[in-house]
Amino acid sequence: MTDLTVSAPSDVDPRVERSRRVILSAALDVLAEQGYGGLTIEAVAARAGVGKSTVYRHWSGKLGLVEDAIRSLKSAVASPTTGSVRERLTELLQQIARAMDDSAWSNCLPAIIEAAGRDPEVMSIHRRLASERRQYLVDLLAEGAATGEVPAGIDLGLLAECLVGPIILRRLMLYERFDDASVRQLLDQLLGPGAPPPR
Amino acid sequence: MTDLTVSAPSDVDPRVERSRRVILSAALDVLAEQGYGGLTIEAVAARAGVGKSTVYRHWSGKLGLVEDAIRSLKSAVASPTTGSVRERLTELLQQIARAMDDSAWSNCLPAIIEAAGRDPEVMSIHRRLASERRQYLVDLLAEGAATGEVPAGIDLGLLAECLVGPIILRRLMLYERFDDASVRQLLDQLLGPGAPPPR
Repeated sequence: MTDLTVSAPSDVDPRVERSRRVILSAALDVLAEQGYGGLTIEAVAARAGVGKSTVYRHWSGKLGLVEDAIRSLKSAVASPTTGSVRERLTELLQQIARAMDDSAWSNCLPAIIEAAGRDPEVMSIHRRLASERRQYLVDLLAEGAATGEVPAGIDLGLLAECLVGPIILRRLMLYERFDDASVRQLLDQLLGPGAPPPR
Repeated sequence: MTDLTVSAPSDVDPRVERSRRVILSAALDVLAEQGYGGLTIEAVAARAGVGKSTVYRHWSGKLGLVEDAIRSLKSAVASPTTGSVRERLTELLQQIARAMDDSAWSNCLPAIIEAAGRDPEVMSIHRRLASERRQYLVDLLAEGAATGEVPAGIDLGLLAECLVGPIILRRLMLYERFDDASVRQLLDQLLGPGAPPPR
């Protein structure tokens, strides 16, 4: 569907890569402001200040462009690599909560959800990306189960949903912030008090 | 904003009440299919098979109509009144999960979320209704804390979000069902194994 992956190989012409990034950013702006229904190649090209043909040089159509645009949002949440499992969980969930508070991801999410209800291909993209993120969290929890930082005998998939679900619920239904202290409280409540992990 | 409350007094002309219900149902259909942007008094009147003037006899405009339509969705989830707190929690969450699986509420939710991102008045309606539902759950959990069915020392607002959040997450991001067994597993995980409550 797309001519370039998100992690473009380093031998790509930097001007081509730059134009690609500008177009992806414009697509996110249009998605947030106009919704999926209002997103056309014309609108994205105009927003990016390029011609339609430049957009078509990167993507064959709207769906591939939207998929790469949504994929590019992953950068809103980096993957913590140092510290105990509990520390990495705290950092990851705080990043997710902050990104939900204000980011291109958060601004586009209602439009993505609405589009997924109408278009099975958008739903499929969204499901795949959300499942990848859940799996990342489940793997981290499994590491915690091995170190003793996550209680034994818990379903890790359901636990992952209990950690992220409240953040999504507040953003999409209650319109309240989920602050750093709430993340720590959530982890204390679900994993037990946040003592230093055993070494 | 509205001329009639959702629970219309019993002395209302049954024909008026019937026309009101037909229009609310039509509004939900249009909301689910066309989104909030596509919902006009004209479209709702046409869907309901009535004239625009009939709609305006009940509501002064689109926003009041949408608020009452969303309010009417509450009937998708009844409030269990018998049994232990644990039994009522189980029943309530299973009803929410089933309603998320397929109901007018579930079908309209993406459109409501999308509209809330654009229109502060829609957001305000949605926030109010979602907060009312959370409070109902918190009150039930408080009753459980008094009977010993909910562990002491837990933040009940956060616990309520941990119970509903995973259901919302699966519906809106992962596109997976949350079945009756998952509800029981969720309660076992968050409240402890589901033994008969103390009497």
